[in-house]
Amino acid sequence: MTHAVTRAPPLPRLTSARAELTREVHVVDEHGEHGLVSIPAERDLTVYVDRRELVTLMTLGAQPELLVLGYLLNQRLIESAADVESITVDWEVGAAAVKTHAGIDRIEERTAKKVVTTGCGQGSVFGELMAGIDRLELPATRLRQSQLYALVNAIRLQESTYKSAGSVHGCALFTLGEGDDDAHMQCFVEDVGRHNAIDTIAGWIAMQPAGRLEGGRAFYTTGRLTSEMVIKSAQMGVAIVVSRSGITQMGHEVATRVGLCAIGRATNRRFVCYAGVERLSLQPELASR
Amino acid sequence: MTHAVTRAPPLPRLTSARAELTREVHVVDEHGEHGLVSIPAERDLTVYVDRRELVTLMTLGAQPELLVLGYLLNQRLIESAADVESITVDWEVGAAAVKTHAGIDRIEERTAKKVVTTGCGQGSVFGELMAGIDRLELPATRLRQSQLYALVNAIRLQESTYKSAGSVHGCALFTLGEGDDDAHMQCFVEDVGRHNAIDTIAGWIAMQPAGRLEGGRAFYTTGRLTSEMVIKSAQMGVAIVVSRSGITQMGHEVATRVGLCAIGRATNRRFVCYAGVERLSLQPELASR
Repeated sequence: MTHAVTRAPPLPRLTSARAELTREVHVVDEHGEHGLVSIPAERDLTVYVDRRELVTLMTLGAQPELLVLGYLLNQRLIESAADVESITVDWEVGAAAVKTHAGIDRIEERTAKKVVTTGCGQGSVFGELMAGIDRLELPATRLRQSQLYALVNAIRLQESTYKSAGSVHGCALFTLGEGDDDAHMQCFVEDVGRHNAIDTIAGWIAMQPAGRLEGGRAFYTTGRLTSEMVIKSAQMGVAIVVSRSGITQMGHEVATRVGLCAIGRATNRRFVCYAGVERLSLQPELASR
Repeated sequence: MTHAVTRAPPLPRLTSARAELTREVHVVDEHGEHGLVSIPAERDLTVYVDRRELVTLMTLGAQPELLVLGYLLNQRLIESAADVESITVDWEVGAAAVKTHAGIDRIEERTAKKVVTTGCGQGSVFGELMAGIDRLELPATRLRQSQLYALVNAIRLQESTYKSAGSVHGCALFTLGEGDDDAHMQCFVEDVGRHNAIDTIAGWIAMQPAGRLEGGRAFYTTGRLTSEMVIKSAQMGVAIVVSRSGITQMGHEVATRVGLCAIGRATNRRFVCYAGVERLSLQPELASR
């Protein structure tokens, strides 16, 4: 049996620019002893859209093409990855050249409003971020306490720049299955700014073929649950957000408003559910095992 | 004996807008138990300069007038506090009205360039931040290991929103005396974004009468030592920066370039000096006490 196939619009062509993620620096410790420690790399990447300078991002540099794609999506400057023909990153000159199929409508106007967000903030969240969050419809995802524990454990086991060099934020996207412990890490990203990490995940999602990410999704971040993190999760269609850290008032307000399940202070078997507890299947008997 | 006194230019008039710093929210924990926890407040403050909208800051709201003053200083939109006639904050409408004596020259041009900085980034660090750092001359401040320990201990004892609600960054300014443990906390500020905390300290410094802050200064932050934190410290004439956290590559580069002493991982008696060790009087015998 064959199916009629609707041809998916072509995904953008991306380079695979790579760079060192850590560097060693000379230090002196409290015993007066000299040594070398690793610190995370941090480089500037100036984004040009159709030859026009848009913004300079400071980044660790692990997946710059996905970062730029996710940035454009999360800033709502493009509607989908298919709007982009190619993203070419060249670390020699610290530039990302984005070529779109049809330009970005009203780009000047839409990048004019500045909001300095909280925390590892996107910084200039060009205006429209809060607009339209009431129109967002989140999927009916639910999370079992056992899946939450599986998720937190997967993060604990993940090799990371954080473990070797500290001073970076990590984010991960999980898919949730039917089984008790079914929480599968699909993508793990670190960056010097957690807004970059979540943007990179948005770029990664946008590059997946249709059907690749079926089922429920959950998002993990090492950083605080700020309004920006909550809005971006909702924009990515993720209704469950888990953090090792806490939540801010705006993060709490937005999560409550869009019906997102926000879980913080998640380490080992402990956690606090700040909002959307109706999405969480509690299994208190697991808490003290 | 009398001295001829040069009359200092008048300082700006500031309101003293206050707001609740925490709020309680309903949560459910891993045992399925319901309860209330405090989370930090977070509110938006739109800054108008001479009736013209400049930026919206997301802030805890403890000292909004000093935040706005420090923001204008650190963005180098004003040269000194005396450029400002008054700052009026009204939380009812979430607005800070800044009145200057003579306007801000070329404000449109100077706020046009966007850089999204790392970490709890200033966000839109309107362009000129990196410009002119090579012209900065830092004072010859030195820090003894015993003073570093006194500083870290003062932070440990400080009452804070962080202790009650988490999810905020803290900053403090210390002056250093002649004695072995002479490190005196002058100002302690918390905010949902650490860029706000350091801006508020810059505002506080600018409001002190001449001679009030004689001697060496050191700056403490709970956040990472990013390039932005290092540059802002240097701009405030502070040559010693201490963090509980680590350092990023750009932070390290800027600290090295301007000759600033950058100390991280400072908890109890441990620390790592990343740059400017020549400013640190090591006393390794104190490390293991």
